This record gives sequence, structure tokens and C-alpha cells, in this order.
Amino acid sequence: MATIPLPFSLAKVQEIIRQYPTPFYLYDAAGIIRCVQGLQAAFAWNEGFREYFAVKAAPTPGILSLLSSLGCGMDCASMTELMLCERLGITGDRIMFSSNDTPGPEYEYARRLGAIINLDDLTHVDFLEAHGGIPDTVCCRYNPGRFSLDKNAIMGNLQDSKFGMPREQLLEAFRRLKAKGARHFGIHAMLISCSLDAAYFPTLLEDLLSLALEAKEKAGVEVEFIDLSGGIGIPYRPEESPVDIQAIGQAVRQIYAQLALANGLHPRLYTELGRYITGPYGYLITTALHEKRTYKHYLGVDASACDLMRPAIYGAYHHISVLGKENAPADHLYDVTGALCENNDKFAVDRLLPQVAMGDILVIHDAGAHGRSMGYNYNGKLRCGELLLEPDGSLRLLRRAETPKDYFATLDCTGLFDDLA
Amino acid sequence: MATIPLPFSLAKVQEIIRQYPTPFYLYDAAGIIRCVQGLQAAFAWNEGFREYFAVKAAPTPGILSLLSSLGCGMDCASMTELMLCERLGITGDRIMFSSNDTPGPEYEYARRLGAIINLDDLTHVDFLEAHGGIPDTVCCRYNPGRFSLDKNAIMGNLQDSKFGMPREQLLEAFRRLKAKGARHFGIHAMLISCSLDAAYFPTLLEDLLSLALEAKEKAGVEVEFIDLSGGIGIPYRPEESPVDIQAIGQAVRQIYAQLALANGLHPRLYTELGRYITGPYGYLITTALHEKRTYKHYLGVDASACDLMRPAIYGAYHHISVLGKENAPADHLYDVTGALCENNDKFAVDRLLPQVAMGDILVIHDAGAHGRSMGYNYNGKLRCGELLLEPDGSLRLLRRAETPKDYFATLDCTGLFDDLA
Repeated sequence: MATIPLPFSLAKVQEIIRQYPTPFYLYDAAGIIRCVQGLQAAFAWNEGFREYFAVKAAPTPGILSLLSSLGCGMDCASMTELMLCERLGITGDRIMFSSNDTPGPEYEYARRLGAIINLDDLTHVDFLEAHGGIPDTVCCRYNPGRFSLDKNAIMGNLQDSKFGMPREQLLEAFRRLKAKGARHFGIHAMLISCSLDAAYFPTLLEDLLSLALEAKEKAGVEVEFIDLSGGIGIPYRPEESPVDIQAIGQAVRQIYAQLALANGLHPRLYTELGRYITGPYGYLITTALHEKRTYKHYLGVDASACDLMRPAIYGAYHHISVLGKENAPADHLYDVTGALCENNDKFAVDRLLPQVAMGDILVIHDAGAHGRSMGYNYNGKLRCGELLLEPDGSLRLLRRAETPKDYFATLDCTGLFDDLA
Repeated sequence: MATIPLPFSLAKVQEIIRQYPTPFYLYDAAGIIRCVQGLQAAFAWNEGFREYFAVKAAPTPGILSLLSSLGCGMDCASMTELMLCERLGITGDRIMFSSNDTPGPEYEYARRLGAIINLDDLTHVDFLEAHGGIPDTVCCRYNPGRFSLDKNAIMGNLQDSKFGMPREQLLEAFRRLKAKGARHFGIHAMLISCSLDAAYFPTLLEDLLSLALEAKEKAGVEVEFIDLSGGIGIPYRPEESPVDIQAIGQAVRQIYAQLALANGLHPRLYTELGRYITGPYGYLITTALHEKRTYKHYLGVDASACDLMRPAIYGAYHHISVLGKENAPADHLYDVTGALCENNDKFAVDRLLPQVAMGDILVIHDAGAHGRSMGYNYNGKLRCGELLLEPDGSLRLLRRAETPKDYFATLDCTGLFDDLA
């Protein structure tokens, strides 16, 4: 198996650890920049193309401001995500507010920021009118119930998905929104998650353009933007390859020419990628703490599912490197575990690694999306901090590690922890 | 289906909501007290019996102090859980420190508090000696690799469990601990989780007594306490029945007489129950916010998997009552959803409930253990607070709900949120 190159050396990480003990997340700014620029190049043919970064993937100001400086908007799903954007000066149509089961105050806040509202349900038309009012520009989320790639395979069961509106409801939502004064319309759909199938975006666009044509005909609404949302995955496993985003951009362009331009439509295209943008460029850095040989060979590290939950709850694969041993033979079979009193707290099961010595530094790959943001405090564990490696090699603290004071903050009514520094 | 009685009325909850908006956890102190007293009665025949409450199930001072006042000790697994106990004045042998992959400073802290240390691995003997020193009293965690109930069924695959020591290693750990000066010994095992099988504790004790006899013979160690730990479940589903703890206590007593007393052993028995103690007596209270009819009929509430993760990640069943409609026919089929942008954020799928109106208050049952403590902040959602209903009907705030200031606390290096109240 080929060695997966890392954007930092053992010496660099050892230097970082002297200031910031493990575990911590380390993001590679250069990688994120390259990825965004590649995406933008792939869709440069579409005037008005914009990536709205899925904030939930990495709701960290240093990452969001980097993305914003590259021209990205933000896809928000909650009050605090909106607050993050406001504080970073990201407002107006640079925010897509894509939520479901939305509380009234969140709509009101999103409206105050001038965000584009992406409605999840027909009933939300009246609800939005009562909570913030109907905006000029509005988007509706589509759930076709079925979705075929290559006209054969059905991907997932969209009829069990809580998201979006069936076709007739979406058309009815457009009619009602128009009657209530909305003037600019978009459609949004996210039909799969974490897919490496290059046909996904083109196929999705085909479906959405057919819907846009129907909206024009049946609701008298011209769809001015189409939000392809997320769904593009990353190669978590070494044997997988990343998608060719330029080829996807060209395939989308072809569909766009055939079905949009040829029918007098010229919608702006948006994406709401998260995992694809930051996933591969975030690393969880952890130190080997205990070696245990019972029925299996365990390697205990100082990170846990509280820092990165995906392996525990999804059985997700995350590649692991042992720093400084990148070229050593991977001939030791380990389960790599955290310290939670849950047997699923394992970063890897039956993983071949080079022989690990206690104190060795392990790098858990592809943790840059839905990693720290899905952290929890089970077993009273504190969530780790986040660091950014700048393109010039300098280091920036993005988020400090939690302290007991943070963990006990909501217990201030007890007075028990008032003295904590 | 019989109505499951609730320890509070619609009027009472409406009164609470005027001060504390939903969602929140509501615990029933009377239920917890009854449960603990029942457990203590079941094992009263064993001198020195003690329940060490699994703090991870509900790490909330108001609950821990209630349990402590009833005579319970605390089973801790981390630094912050130890801190909680210290602040509550719970120290010494009233703490069982049962952890795995343990960092050195946590052993040192547990030793300073005089906690009983429960070692997970043979290598931890030397590690503990280096981090806090070998105590007078020590426990070792056993993993038999196989475990039979009724001598036929194999429960789970213990050879894939990261916890505990095989028999020979445990005996060797005892020898080494004794050589290093330990004088009082215990054994611990937790071989299943959330079981309603009344045979579990008696069968486990049988195995552990056989190990205790072997320890005497081969390691010259008298086992003075046996920690049966947790594993006893609760009836999440209405058609399930709670275990008969008195019958379990008597069955354990019989094994104890046959295999301990008859062989000259008289160990104290300990348990580390969590779910059994608080699970049924904690309720997540939430309000119906949105009704959505697409391919299915959805009921959106104001709680989410961030407040209670078990249905989302385990597909766990939690019973739901609609307050004030306890006797109405359950003839409407709903998926009950939270607002996370994750399709698994559903408290119930295809659940028959009475017809729910927006604003109705829903009670999610059996949320008193591994509920709030497994909460997370995904999608930027804030975790809810906790309230205790005292036996006299008065209400006590145990933990306030999180605020944006809490959520952004670890971003103080950015200065972006310094002004938040």
C-alpha cells in the first residue's frame, strides 16, 4: 500500500506538542485552499456559481473565515451557526439557511441577516411568513421519493427521509410563496451522502432541471438557482480515489447545456459541500498510551470517540499513520482504542500498522469534517482543540481544548465549581 | 396497551414550562429513591453490599448527592467524574475508579482521593505504581473470553471486548500487586449490557467465585469483594417487564451460600448499576413544533438527538406519551423527529400516538441514564437542562440549559464572542 503523504513531519508535530499536548485536530490550510480553488475552477463556466460550505462539518471561525476569503458562502442549520456567520461578517445571500423542523426564532434571525431561506416543507411557507416574513429570494428543498443513477440503481430510500418536499408540494410552495410576494426562486436537493460516484451531480441536475421546467410551466416560477447541495464523498480508504471534480464540472456543464440553456433556463449553480472541502485536510493527532494483549492486541491512545465519533457510531474507516514510521512495514495487527467505557470506542479494528511504541504519535486521517463538530462529553471526557497549519508553515490556534470549567459550566446553579480557573 | 403512569400531570409540566422552556430533562426523585432502596433490600443479606452508581449514566450533582445520601458510592471513569465526587464530599472507598486506557494523571488523582482502583489490564500494575503508587486495596477487571447463561447460550463476543483481563493475566496481576504491597483484593466483571435476564447476576457470581477460589489457591490472594458491576437493563418497551430485583438478590444469595460460604469465602458484593437506577426516572420533555406530511407523517419536536442520542445511534426504542392525551386512542402513525440535518434524528419511527396538535407536550420515557450525558452539539445545537421533581412535589434546577456563550467558550482565542452574556 502506498504511503499517504502528510503535510507535516514528525519533527513539526513534536514541536507543536510541546505547546499543545495531544490530542488535537490539525488542519492543513493549503489543502483546503487547493480543494476550494479546484471546485471553483470546475464550475467557473457557470456564472454565479457559489459553494456554500456546510458549517456543521467544521463550525470553527478560522476555517470559515478562510473559506469566506476564498469566495465561499455558508450553509447554516441553526442559531449558533448563524451567529458564527454574523460575527465573521458573513451575511445576506452569502448565507444559505438550510434547516428542517425549524424553530421560529431561527427563521427570524436568518431573515434579519438577509440569508437565503431554504424551506424544507410546504407548511413552512406560512410558518416563515409568521416568523420573519416572506423574503424576496427563497429556495425550496426537493425530495423526489426515488432517485436513479444510471436509471437502474435506486440510491437509498428517499421515502424514509424526513427532508424536503415531494414534487407537487414543492410546486404548491412556489405558488404560495409567489402569491405572498417572493420574486426569486431556487431549488435544493441532497439525495445521497458521501458518494464517490461521479454521476451523482450530473444526474441530480438532470432531475432538478426537469423540476425547474415544470415550475415554470405549472407555477409560473423561473428557477434562478439550483443548489446541488452536498453528497460528494472523500476516499476514506487508501484503495479509494477522490472524485475528479473537473470531470464532474464538465459533465454537469453538458447536462446544463442540454437541458437548461436549450430550454431557456440559465440558473446559477450552488453547492453545499462540507466533507469534500475540509474532510481530507483535518487530522486528529493522538499519542499511544497503553498496549494491551488479551484476546486481541490493543493500542490505547489519548484521543477517544469524544473527539471523533465516526468510527464508534458508523463503524467508519479512518486511515491511521504512525508519525516517523511512514515507511516501516505495517505488520502488526491492532485494535486502536480510546478510553471510553464503551466497547465501540475504537478508532480501528484489526488494523495493520507498523509496530507502535508507547509515546508514538498517531495521525488519524480524514477527520476534518464531522469530526470535532460531532464531539461529545460522554464519560466526562473533554473535547480537544483545533490548530491550523498555515500555507507558510506557521501555526494558528483555532479552538482551545475544553477544560473542566467548560465541562461544569452548566452547573453554575450548584456553586460547586465557582472556584475553577 | 396499558397507559404508563407518569409522576407528573399536564398542569404541573405546563407550570414548569412557564419558567423553563422545553426541551428539558425531568427526573423523579421518588422513583430513584424507591429503586435504590429496592436494590439495597435485595442485597441486605450481604454485609458490606454497596451500589457504586455509574456516574457516566447521569453525571449531575443533584442526582449524585441524592444517591450518596442513600448510601451509594460512585463508579467513576474519568478526571471530571472524580472531580464531581470530590466536590460532593464523596471520597475514599466510596469511589470505584473503573477505567480503561487510563491516563497517568487520572490514576494519580484517584489515588489522592483514596478511591478503589479497578485495573483493566496487567500492564496497568506497573503503570499505576508509577502514577500514584500501589494502594492497599485494589480490584482487577476480569474478561473470561466466554460467558454462558444456562451453559448453552454465549452472550456477546467477549473476545472482541477491549475490557478486562483473561484469567491467567488476572491471577498474575494479583501476584504482582501482592508483591508490590497490596493487601486487599477485589474482582470486577461486566459481561453484558442492558439485560433483563434474571439469571445474569447469579451466573456471573458463579464465574467470579470460581475465579476467587483460584486466586486463593494460585495467587495466595483472598478476594474480599466482588463487583458485579452493571448490565441489568430496564424495560424500554411497554411490553417488557422490569427485572424482579428481590428475586435476583435471592438467587445471588443462593449461589453465594453454595460457592462462597461453603468454601470459606465471604466477599462483600458491589454493583455498578447506572441505567437501572436512574433510567426509568428521567423524562425528556419536548414540545411539538411542526407537522409534515410527505411520504410519511412527521412530527417535529423542539428536542433533538443532541439532547438524547440513543434513538439516533442505536435505533433505541423510547416510549413516548402525549401529556393530557394519555387515555386517547393511539391511532396516528408518526415519525417523531428532531431538527438535526441527519436523517437518523428521529425519536421514533412508525410510532402510534394519539393525534398530536402543535404545542402539545411530549414525554420521552426512560431517558434518565445515558441521555443528557451522551448529548452533543452537532449542527451547533445547544444541550438542554435538567430538573428534579422532589418527593414533596417541589422542583429543583439541577443543570441549566446551554447558551451560545457555552457553545462558543472554546473560541475565546478569537475574541469573536467576548461580549456574550
